[in-house]
Amino acid sequence: MEPRLVRAFDRLIRRKGYPNRSEAIRDLVRDTLVREEWAVGKDETMATVNLVYDHHHGDVTEMLNSIEHAHLSMIVSTLHVHLDHHHCLEVIVLRGTPARIQALADRLISAKGVMHGKLSVATTGKTIV
Amino acid sequence: MEPRLVRAFDRLIRRKGYPNRSEAIRDLVRDTLVREEWAVGKDETMATVNLVYDHHHGDVTEMLNSIEHAHLSMIVSTLHVHLDHHHCLEVIVLRGTPARIQALADRLISAKGVMHGKLSVATTGKTIV
Amino acid sequence: MEPRLVRAFDRLIRRKGYPNRSEAIRDLVRDTLVREEWAVGKDETMATVNLVYDHHHGDVTEMLNSIEHAHLSMIVSTLHVHLDHHHCLEVIVLRGTPARIQALADRLISAKGVMHGKLSVATTGKTIV
Amino acid sequence: MEPRLVRAFDRLIRRKGYPNRSEAIRDLVRDTLVREEWAVGKDETMATVNLVYDHHHGDVTEMLNSIEHAHLSMIVSTLHVHLDHHHCLEVIVLRGTPARIQALADRLISAKGVMHGKLSVATTGKTIV
Repeated sequence: MEPRLVRAFDRLIRRKGYPNRSEAIRDLVRDTLVREEWAVGKDETMATVNLVYDHHHGDVTEMLNSIEHAHLSMIVSTLHVHLDHHHCLEVIVLRGTPARIQALADRLISAKGVMHGKLSVATTGKTIV
Repeated sequence: MEPRLVRAFDRLIRRKGYPNRSEAIRDLVRDTLVREEWAVGKDETMATVNLVYDHHHGDVTEMLNSIEHAHLSMIVSTLHVHLDHHHCLEVIVLRGTPARIQALADRLISAKGVMHGKLSVATTGKTIV
Repeated sequence: MEPRLVRAFDRLIRRKGYPNRSEAIRDLVRDTLVREEWAVGKDETMATVNLVYDHHHGDVTEMLNSIEHAHLSMIVSTLHVHLDHHHCLEVIVLRGTPARIQALADRLISAKGVMHGKLSVATTGKTIV
Repeated sequence: MEPRLVRAFDRLIRRKGYPNRSEAIRDLVRDTLVREEWAVGKDETMATVNLVYDHHHGDVTEMLNSIEHAHLSMIVSTLHVHLDHHHCLEVIVLRGTPARIQALADRLISAKGVMHGKLSVATTGKTIV
């Protein structure tokens, strides 16, 4: 690697708190493998979906519950945090193929009443040594 | 908007399952507001961090536990899923200013033994009507 | 029922906040059915185990993690709350036959370093209409 | 202790899997302290409530959500497990004085549509060394 690239990378890993350069490189490689796992998309993997919504808004609570119950086998569990008198944060842990996870996440995030939604991909750890 | 842009957008929102175009536009605007909330970064907000690790690897479990206990006030709770005999998925719900959340996420993700880590920003819902 | 018994029961259900007497009676009957489900103990059921421990105490964190990973198929997920710099509350959601749940709960609660443990039986809801 | 009592106790602790008699005795003493903490009931403590309900039943989901939002400061987070197409298991982690926890648990458990509910007391760990 060119010296300037190395220096820029070293500044980054110091800021991120990595103990050393090889740990940081390993993380980059693993991240690429996880993205590949998602792009190829045949094997079961893990993900989480964050949803923020106002539980007073129409029937959003019941609608999310119905979507989730229709996909029982993919949902490990859901963590619910009451943010204030109106807002809820729901973190849903999903297991399935990337395509099915993406489709379920799309339905949850696009549901009427959901103010903010985000899919965060993870992994079962099997593809990354 | 130009017709071609509208058509491309309509295809996307159909694929994502939005009931109509205005719900999709609203989500785009809210997403921008959440990103702005994070960029400006003065107010308390919410986020989750996903970590995948092998609990047999050195003292990774204890190290994560120590980092988390040193940031008690920022951690709402942690959801732990046992993936297989080696791998764990940990979903940590965080509350704090964007800068402090980012710093804590960096420390968790860069910890030795963590195979995959991802910060997923959320919101308290206050900045998005 | 004798009048005195009815009056005592009415005082109790008022204190507990039940909307009416029949809702309270239904809950009593269901509770008996859940207890029976556990006494007979052939079918899969649900339970939670609460554990309080000091994560600085020996290798309690790793030991609990190992016990849990050896019973993967029975553990739905674990919710972890950091109480203070020393103490953790772990809530483990279990699925299995009563005998296997009881045996796993005993091992978790009796583990060295666990300060407080409690099994709380639940149900899959199938035996109670 | 009388020999017969000791033998009966030894059989119990073998069955429960305790490594030795003193660990079992310690657990008994701690359990008494936790119960005392709850009986005296001035200090903040921890508890969980398990609820099983059919989310299709009337407005049970929304009612529970409303009760929980009205007690925001006492609720750490809620773990939700979808049991089958009808039934949900909700595990609510509570923080507060025993009296306030008991009152909130009573309201949740007696809510119309809740099929099974159970309060399981825990501790902040401060009263048990």
